Amino acid sequence: ALAAPAIAQENPKFTWRLTSSFPKSLDTIYGAAETMAARVKEATGGNFEIQVFAAGEIVPGLQAVDAVSDGTVEMCHTASYYFWGKDATFQLGTATPFLMNSRMQNAWFIEGGGTDMLNEFYNTQGLQAYPCGNTGAQMGGWFRKEINTIEDLNGLKMRIGGFAGKILAKLGVAPQQIAGGDIYAALEKGTIDATEWVGPYDDQKLGFNKVAKYYYYPGWWEGGAALHAMTNLGKYNELPEHYKTILQDACYFGNASMQARYDMKNPAALKQLVADGAVLRPFNQDVLDACYAATQEVYAEVNAANPAFKKIYDSQLAYAKDAYLWQQLSEYTFDTYMMIQQRSGKL
Amino acid sequence: ALAAPAIAQENPKFTWRLTSSFPKSLDTIYGAAETMAARVKEATGGNFEIQVFAAGEIVPGLQAVDAVSDGTVEMCHTASYYFWGKDATFQLGTATPFLMNSRMQNAWFIEGGGTDMLNEFYNTQGLQAYPCGNTGAQMGGWFRKEINTIEDLNGLKMRIGGFAGKILAKLGVAPQQIAGGDIYAALEKGTIDATEWVGPYDDQKLGFNKVAKYYYYPGWWEGGAALHAMTNLGKYNELPEHYKTILQDACYFGNASMQARYDMKNPAALKQLVADGAVLRPFNQDVLDACYAATQEVYAEVNAANPAFKKIYDSQLAYAKDAYLWQQLSEYTFDTYMMIQQRSGKL
Repeated sequence: ALAAPAIAQENPKFTWRLTSSFPKSLDTIYGAAETMAARVKEATGGNFEIQVFAAGEIVPGLQAVDAVSDGTVEMCHTASYYFWGKDATFQLGTATPFLMNSRMQNAWFIEGGGTDMLNEFYNTQGLQAYPCGNTGAQMGGWFRKEINTIEDLNGLKMRIGGFAGKILAKLGVAPQQIAGGDIYAALEKGTIDATEWVGPYDDQKLGFNKVAKYYYYPGWWEGGAALHAMTNLGKYNELPEHYKTILQDACYFGNASMQARYDMKNPAALKQLVADGAVLRPFNQDVLDACYAATQEVYAEVNAANPAFKKIYDSQLAYAKDAYLWQQLSEYTFDTYMMIQQRSGKL
Repeated sequence: ALAAPAIAQENPKFTWRLTSSFPKSLDTIYGAAETMAARVKEATGGNFEIQVFAAGEIVPGLQAVDAVSDGTVEMCHTASYYFWGKDATFQLGTATPFLMNSRMQNAWFIEGGGTDMLNEFYNTQGLQAYPCGNTGAQMGGWFRKEINTIEDLNGLKMRIGGFAGKILAKLGVAPQQIAGGDIYAALEKGTIDATEWVGPYDDQKLGFNKVAKYYYYPGWWEGGAALHAMTNLGKYNELPEHYKTILQDACYFGNASMQARYDMKNPAALKQLVADGAVLRPFNQDVLDACYAATQEVYAEVNAANPAFKKIYDSQLAYAKDAYLWQQLSEYTFDTYMMIQQRSGKL
């Protein structure tokens, strides 16, 4: 047999492993990594393969970033804010409470320098990351009793993640860290009074409506929640330039398609939840105002202590101010009119 | 010299021409085609080159689709609705009046079967198309006098595109077709009373605020306006499979980045327009209701006459009903609260 000609392969073989922070049962979030990986494989004629593993198959979900930093795997797909305890700056990649919605996040990522600013920080952690999915504005979660006043939050035992928990603690909430699979039992037994999760499609699978009927909105701590595909920085830099572009574009496709999937799946789930007894409740103005004030206190504290956080937060804040000024015209009045038509049965 | 080894090129050379329907001065829209083409080139190591030409360089902007269908060029970047006169179904690829916003369009395109349904139709025209840009909700345009009642629309000479013009004609508006560069003079002379264009960033360049101070919203005929990159179907099918994926992902990146660019640029332009004398005015409920009713009449007529239109319209309508039901919870209340904070100076 003849040796293969010694020319450089245009599309060299790479086989990478990606650890997801999510179980396969969260098919919408987990699926964004699968979508991204499939696009990369197709775009390279099968030569760049990213194998996707669910949380726990290689490392637990909350060790995803460490596993990428230390080279155990080449990639992860995660919510950056899980790692805010290492450095609060990780929070800003996923969701900045009371700030941008998902459309604003995308504008800031792509055209506002956001992806580059985040990568300046992620690079210090040995990571290079691109947006790869968004949930849109999340729901505020499930409560066993109504929240009518700020006092109703005092002493409330609520399953809620780190940074948002830190904010709510200022109002007397006792935040609890409980894994997804254990929340239902905790709510049923009364070990907790409330839980937040994601939105109708994901929440329905866990059946929270059976043990906590008040379904509050909005989830002001996640006006949008962005997922990221993170690569080990050294491994990323070893990729041929055209593979970097292919990977980025596949991430941004995953970014758009995950939001699209939630947007297609949430309406039917919402209708079913209401049919099954969920009672929809908006947080009232007093409650939101108190939460907003507590949030500003936390930002003041973290900004004072962490220059990397402050730099990125300031950029997001400046854009959000402009964005809400503009979007209250055509976008908001168009949506408002269409919602009126929908509610009155004219759509 | 030795002959090159006779192996198939992994990334074969393709050089395509793309005709844009837009001038370079509309840098945000025109730029989406440039962004897409740059990503394709980078992702193929320079081997798949799409050369972007402004409207008029090869064919006029409104002949873009014909030039692709007949193979004069391999691609165009256009607003499908420019060609609604050939077949009203072309309208549904860009903007369906009083229906989806841009986020809903993306959900419908990517996860609601929309891109496939549109391509079923586009294929009958010798085209294969992918979303490549969105303006978001457009403004309603510039008016020399206030529109306070439905009667104020009667006899109004307004520069407005085809399908939307057909709707407004039912209310007595006399729609005018005027090229972008000629609108200012027509408004100044009083040949027309009003014009719609896009939104603050594009409108500011044409200086409409100097000759028609009332700036109305929302542009209900374009709750979102999607651009498409369209390829000649035969040429598309000649591409290697991995080039098809690369092209699609680059289109979707262009899709996201164009919306992002408008979202970053519109706020500053809006502030400057208001500083320069533009007076913002929402269309009131009576006016919107009359326009909504006229729109439903047009849909009834077109649906009765055109089964291809009806099939796609029905799919969009079914999704829009669900989408507005769901988005009025967290998304809308979150945005509303943030807009209140912005207006009160607390953001």
